[in-house]
Amino acid sequence: MSNAKALPLLEPADQGVAPCCPPLTERPFSAEEAETAARMFKALGDPVRLRLFSAVASHEGGEACVCDISDVGVSQPTVSHHLKKLKDAGLLTSERRGTWVYYRVEPSVLAAMGQLLTLRSAA
Amino acid sequence: MSNAKALPLLEPADQGVAPCCPPLTERPFSAEEAETAARMFKALGDPVRLRLFSAVASHEGGEACVCDISDVGVSQPTVSHHLKKLKDAGLLTSERRGTWVYYRVEPSVLAAMGQLLTLRSAA
Repeated sequence: MSNAKALPLLEPADQGVAPCCPPLTERPFSAEEAETAARMFKALGDPVRLRLFSAVASHEGGEACVCDISDVGVSQPTVSHHLKKLKDAGLLTSERRGTWVYYRVEPSVLAAMGQLLTLRSAA
Repeated sequence: MSNAKALPLLEPADQGVAPCCPPLTERPFSAEEAETAARMFKALGDPVRLRLFSAVASHEGGEACVCDISDVGVSQPTVSHHLKKLKDAGLLTSERRGTWVYYRVEPSVLAAMGQLLTLRSAA
C-alpha cells in the first residue's frame, strides 16, 4: 500500500465544456453556470461560425472537414480558426484522418443547450 | 365599400428579431439566416447578460424590473444596459409601468432558439 499514489484528478481537457445548467426559466443562474453556458452561446454568436457549425451539423454522416466547406466566403485558414473555436467551446469534436481533420457535432452539448432554452411547462 | 382603406402592412418594430431559421442540423444556414440567429446567440454569450436573462425568465409572473434584480454583482445602470441589449436582440420585451420598466421573456424567440438546436431525428 505504501507504493500507492494518489492520481491527480484531471479535468478531461479534450472534452471541452460539459453540459451544465438547468433551463434558463427555472431559476436564476449562478455565476459559474452562467460562465459555462455563455461560452457555448458566444461560440455560436458569430455569423460565420454559425454557418460553419450548421455546415458541419448538416453534412452527410454528421461530420465534415475543411475540404468539405468552401461556400462560406472566407479563406480556409479562417474556416480552420473558427472550427477550432467551436471545438474549444465543446460544440464540436475532431479527429485527424490522413491529411484532414474531421469535425463532428457533439450531440450531448447541443441537447444541453436546447434544454437551457426550454420553457417551463406551467408559466 | 369605397370608404375601406388598405392598412399598410407594418413590421412590428417593437418585437425585435423574429424567429428565423431551421434546425442547425437540417441544412447549411444562409448568410442572412446566420446573421439573424447569431445576434440572438451573441446576446446570451455574456455571463452577466445570461444571469440577468435567467433572473427575468425565472422571476415570479415571468417578468422583472431592475428593482427586482440586485444579486448579479453589477450596478443598476449596468443591469439596465444589458437588459436593453437583450431587448434589442428580441429576447425580451419591455413595458413601462410607473417608475419602472418591466422586462418579460419573449417566448416565441426562446422557442425558436430551442428549435435551432434540435437534433435531426434520423442522423
